[in-house]
Amino acid sequence: MNAPEAPPGSVHRRGFLLVLSSPSGAGKTTITRRLLERDPDLSLSVSVTTRPPRPGEVDGQDYHFIDQHRFDAMVGGNELLEHAIVFGHCYGTPRTPIEAALAAGHDIVTDIDWQGTQQVAEKVPHDLVTIFVLPPSMAALEARLRTRAQDSAAVVTERLGKSAEEMSHWSEYEYVIVNHDVDGSVAEVQAIVTAERLRRIRQIGLADFVNRLRGG
Amino acid sequence: MNAPEAPPGSVHRRGFLLVLSSPSGAGKTTITRRLLERDPDLSLSVSVTTRPPRPGEVDGQDYHFIDQHRFDAMVGGNELLEHAIVFGHCYGTPRTPIEAALAAGHDIVTDIDWQGTQQVAEKVPHDLVTIFVLPPSMAALEARLRTRAQDSAAVVTERLGKSAEEMSHWSEYEYVIVNHDVDGSVAEVQAIVTAERLRRIRQIGLADFVNRLRGG
Repeated sequence: MNAPEAPPGSVHRRGFLLVLSSPSGAGKTTITRRLLERDPDLSLSVSVTTRPPRPGEVDGQDYHFIDQHRFDAMVGGNELLEHAIVFGHCYGTPRTPIEAALAAGHDIVTDIDWQGTQQVAEKVPHDLVTIFVLPPSMAALEARLRTRAQDSAAVVTERLGKSAEEMSHWSEYEYVIVNHDVDGSVAEVQAIVTAERLRRIRQIGLADFVNRLRGG
Repeated sequence: MNAPEAPPGSVHRRGFLLVLSSPSGAGKTTITRRLLERDPDLSLSVSVTTRPPRPGEVDGQDYHFIDQHRFDAMVGGNELLEHAIVFGHCYGTPRTPIEAALAAGHDIVTDIDWQGTQQVAEKVPHDLVTIFVLPPSMAALEARLRTRAQDSAAVVTERLGKSAEEMSHWSEYEYVIVNHDVDGSVAEVQAIVTAERLRRIRQIGLADFVNRLRGG
């Protein structure tokens, strides 16, 4: 997470937190994984959760698995950028590693939902880029949910019901992508990431750079 | 310029005016030409001017060559999005073809200077994307100006003087690119164009699309 110090007067930049929200099954997890594979300046936010690990999940990599007591202490100590209860378990985004990464010029991606996005927007309004991913059709959404081996039929039904509600929040996001095909969507998210890095407000040291150019 | 009507309920979009400003010699003309070659949804704004055509310039393609009387009438009739006097000649950006293109979902690129950008920003604030292109060094800028066969030594000197002034306006632009190499800069501008097309506010019909998804 720690970038080498930029030489004085050079143009470096401040990172941003990229939020990718979508209804379950719209493809945000696949898009996020593909994006992380191709962009070395992007890391995944690792959430804390009170839910037990699923088979194959690694502590500190998939989640930080913590108990309820520790979770409550983090909420009380303002150590979480957002937190939520999903299907009876607590989830949260730790503040410290994200703030350190942004200051070091790294970008962080997270796939929190619209409620988490609203909480984060209050805490890091200038360092936030939000994308909503829509499925091309409900049939496509349902098909993707049903082919997931991990979830039971009951969970699929519950998630489909939640999807319609989740989708009603598309208009709270800066960018909207319709996920017709994964390759196209990954390229679109990558373009957004590249563009956001070129925003003047994210580039630190530009004033010094231009002053030197102008002989000032 | 006229796009076919989008079918009812489909997601289409409103175009934007892309302004690429830079000091003379920083590479914006090359970047613009390369961008136009690869992006069929992007067209060049054709300015009006009172200066006489240079050898090889085509009326209606490089510029609309008009006389002072017509130019003054366009200014008086609010037919120009911006206008300026450069080296003793009048230049302006016609309003009507740009507004028609944006409404039809096409994007237009123009390489007006900071004064023109300020004028345009007052007239089309929501449909504007602004990029400032900086040279990597003054030596690079001077070298590019000197290898232009078209301009006399006196013009080169005058342009170099103007460059330092022009560069002081970098901070009025949304995006800033340092043109280290043309290929990289073209890819960066293309990413900005792609990202801007994915902004929620530019996509028309998204509300209908989501309503249909949700079965509403």
